[in-house]
Amino acid sequence: MAQTIRFNIFHILQASARVEGASVSAKGLTGQAYEGHYFWDTEIYLLPFLIYNSPDTARTILKFRYSMLDKARERARQLNQKGALFPWRTINGEEASAYYAAGTAQYHINADIMYALKKYVDITGDRAFLYEIGAEMLIETARLWLDLGFFTEDDPPQFHIHGVTGPDEYNAIVNNNAYTNMMARENLRFAADTIDELCEKDIDQFGALTHNLGLELSEAREWRKAAKCMYIPYDEEKGIHPQDDNFLEKEKWDLENTPPDKFPLLLYHHPLVIYRYQVIKQADVVLAMLLFGHEFSREQKLRNFNYYEPLTTGDSSLSVCIQGIMAAELGFDDKALEYFRYALLMDLSDVGGNVNDGVHIASMGGTWLGLIYGFAGLRDYGGNLSFNPRLPGVTKKLRFNLKVQGQVLEVEITHETVTYLLKKGDGLVIRHCNKKVSLEKGKAVCEELDRDALPDTGIDPSVCNKIICDPLFNTKAED
Amino acid sequence: MAQTIRFNIFHILQASARVEGASVSAKGLTGQAYEGHYFWDTEIYLLPFLIYNSPDTARTILKFRYSMLDKARERARQLNQKGALFPWRTINGEEASAYYAAGTAQYHINADIMYALKKYVDITGDRAFLYEIGAEMLIETARLWLDLGFFTEDDPPQFHIHGVTGPDEYNAIVNNNAYTNMMARENLRFAADTIDELCEKDIDQFGALTHNLGLELSEAREWRKAAKCMYIPYDEEKGIHPQDDNFLEKEKWDLENTPPDKFPLLLYHHPLVIYRYQVIKQADVVLAMLLFGHEFSREQKLRNFNYYEPLTTGDSSLSVCIQGIMAAELGFDDKALEYFRYALLMDLSDVGGNVNDGVHIASMGGTWLGLIYGFAGLRDYGGNLSFNPRLPGVTKKLRFNLKVQGQVLEVEITHETVTYLLKKGDGLVIRHCNKKVSLEKGKAVCEELDRDALPDTGIDPSVCNKIICDPLFNTKAED
Repeated sequence: MAQTIRFNIFHILQASARVEGASVSAKGLTGQAYEGHYFWDTEIYLLPFLIYNSPDTARTILKFRYSMLDKARERARQLNQKGALFPWRTINGEEASAYYAAGTAQYHINADIMYALKKYVDITGDRAFLYEIGAEMLIETARLWLDLGFFTEDDPPQFHIHGVTGPDEYNAIVNNNAYTNMMARENLRFAADTIDELCEKDIDQFGALTHNLGLELSEAREWRKAAKCMYIPYDEEKGIHPQDDNFLEKEKWDLENTPPDKFPLLLYHHPLVIYRYQVIKQADVVLAMLLFGHEFSREQKLRNFNYYEPLTTGDSSLSVCIQGIMAAELGFDDKALEYFRYALLMDLSDVGGNVNDGVHIASMGGTWLGLIYGFAGLRDYGGNLSFNPRLPGVTKKLRFNLKVQGQVLEVEITHETVTYLLKKGDGLVIRHCNKKVSLEKGKAVCEELDRDALPDTGIDPSVCNKIICDPLFNTKAED
Repeated sequence: MAQTIRFNIFHILQASARVEGASVSAKGLTGQAYEGHYFWDTEIYLLPFLIYNSPDTARTILKFRYSMLDKARERARQLNQKGALFPWRTINGEEASAYYAAGTAQYHINADIMYALKKYVDITGDRAFLYEIGAEMLIETARLWLDLGFFTEDDPPQFHIHGVTGPDEYNAIVNNNAYTNMMARENLRFAADTIDELCEKDIDQFGALTHNLGLELSEAREWRKAAKCMYIPYDEEKGIHPQDDNFLEKEKWDLENTPPDKFPLLLYHHPLVIYRYQVIKQADVVLAMLLFGHEFSREQKLRNFNYYEPLTTGDSSLSVCIQGIMAAELGFDDKALEYFRYALLMDLSDVGGNVNDGVHIASMGGTWLGLIYGFAGLRDYGGNLSFNPRLPGVTKKLRFNLKVQGQVLEVEITHETVTYLLKKGDGLVIRHCNKKVSLEKGKAVCEELDRDALPDTGIDPSVCNKIICDPLFNTKAED
């Protein structure tokens, strides 16, 4: 298994090692499929690896997006919106997707990039990058969201976002895609927080932005209001988050009686047919549960996972790694391992039958995510690292390094214990199975695994609801 | 005005006079736009004129659709459906629309053709055509609807049709488009009625159909069940029929502040933008109110008209004639005349600025509809003719002939009276302002106009609700 993992990591490194002035395309450097275009894969599936292993490369890739901001502004104008809209698929900053329902309609790309920016800043502590490069992107993407959605006439008003496509391309042009709305909320909050922080800590840069972008302080207030009012679909009866406003009204696709040679569905069925059913190409709500673990209760996660898993074809190579991580968190150990193996062997065993077109870089990034967020149980929202390891039976040991705030943390997991060693740095506070662990350089700390420990998002669960309801809540947890 | 009307009628006649083995395309014989393709325009906007004036031509056009039934069967298979799906746009029977959201998704074409077939049979009495040609199309289109929609798990179940586009192309791929569901219901009912009739009156043809198409009697029962359970969106609070399940949840487009040079909206806005708003390209619910006048109360018609009119851009040339007819029925005389003038001058005054691409045959047919269904107030559901004339002030007299059941009826309307004269035939019973009028050949009957008379659909209003709820109700009104 170690060799297979290294095969995947080698390809990520190969694809990203020399990206000066560019980014990592869907096939890396290995094939012509997708014409070398960049998608959200880079930010959501690949960047976590780079942030923790090669933060300079992560920085370069984010800066590359910034270099295309003017084109994103133009694209927003073409779609009658304010702010900037990053293209779903691009090589030179212009939208290159031909089929808008599964392309341009994926407005979530804006928030995906800002989510990656936040993770980069949280983990590296590189606030200069946030101020000099990130803030401008945050302002323009927040403007897009505020303009794209609208406040309903309810009392209190809700902020709705209509006519978008979420990660799952088997349900296109929907109203209030849960993933998109949660991502947009995070984008709006992060933009408002950053403006406040700039105003306090870097008045020169703040002045430059207000001058150059015509930024008004009232805008940040509106972003907070939209975030606070953001509508997240929830079905009280089923206790689950519907993928979008109409998802639960659809018929369920008869997956059981669909012959194996009729997958991926998109190659054998007209989109009109696919869109009419409860059938999912790739993790959508389940991905939101990974990215915003602290905004769901464990019971909600379980119910959502159990509801969506049987509807999910995994026709996208971006699906199994995420399903696997959430399976691991929820204690479905066999499933977690099975999903992980699918991701791991995606290219080596040619699971999709199309490796001749090039490797699946997102899934390769997802392999690393499966190891670190899945089996090691890392959660890092807000830059607060917590671990809740659950090593699969077939594996004897898992050891890896993470670069955090310029320090280097080594984690070594066996079936009984986990050893944390700060190899470089002045000191780091993490959590292990909900327990605070203070690390000093060179002093290994060994902890026992706790199979019953709930995942720890670094945020006190008792305030989770507060976070959901109140965007003014400071998301930086206290150590 | 008479000359302008004749200009429109001349073009309809020119386009349809020699259609042997073909049909009438969107531009008739006058231009290359739409590449000579056939749309629903022919059946819904043009065929009423032909049925009443040149029934043999109407028959030829319907027979032409029949000649493409095998291709429609193939098309249904391509879309994973049973039965037959007539192409939205075609010249040789194959779907020729490139943009499926405003093309193939308009499944209502199936029911539009069957609606025209019913009108042809009802008005001409040509039941041989129904048995020999129509029945097979009815069976295959009904099969499509039953397969396309689904019964909900409610008690009693509702029949829903998801993921379709109605006549209004500014709201695409919606669930339960009211027009589509009403048209599908009519299609299902008509198919089941025809099977029953065939079984009783032409057992040979019935046997041939059951043999050739593998028809089971249980199918007709399922069609009736789907028709009976057909869900028609209705908003109790507003007292209107929402155009589709999500229409009322959308923001309203700010038409007031849209500059005149930004119309038609589709040329200046991405579909993603347009689909996100309450904004209408062309009459949709309002068209359903004309085609199924007996299935709406007068109050519902008023509320629907008043709700949708301010949202309707009329960006399609198929809109103003229908808006005008409903305005006339509802007593908005000035509006009715204004809409009628738009339709009348569509090509002569080049209202759309594109007459160099060819005339708008549908609007030309709509001009005749405006005269006969609008100002003369003809309603003819089930072949029962009723008149409720409302001549506009600028017009002195309106006189026209109608061929009905092989007879010829002349109608002459002034501001005070209307004179009905059966010029050919054995006798005809019609209604004038809700009063039964028996006509004998050569004996003119003069009646006074009644400005306060409600439109008469030929069906007792007290049973309208029964029709809506009970598809088993025999729609042939008693004289």
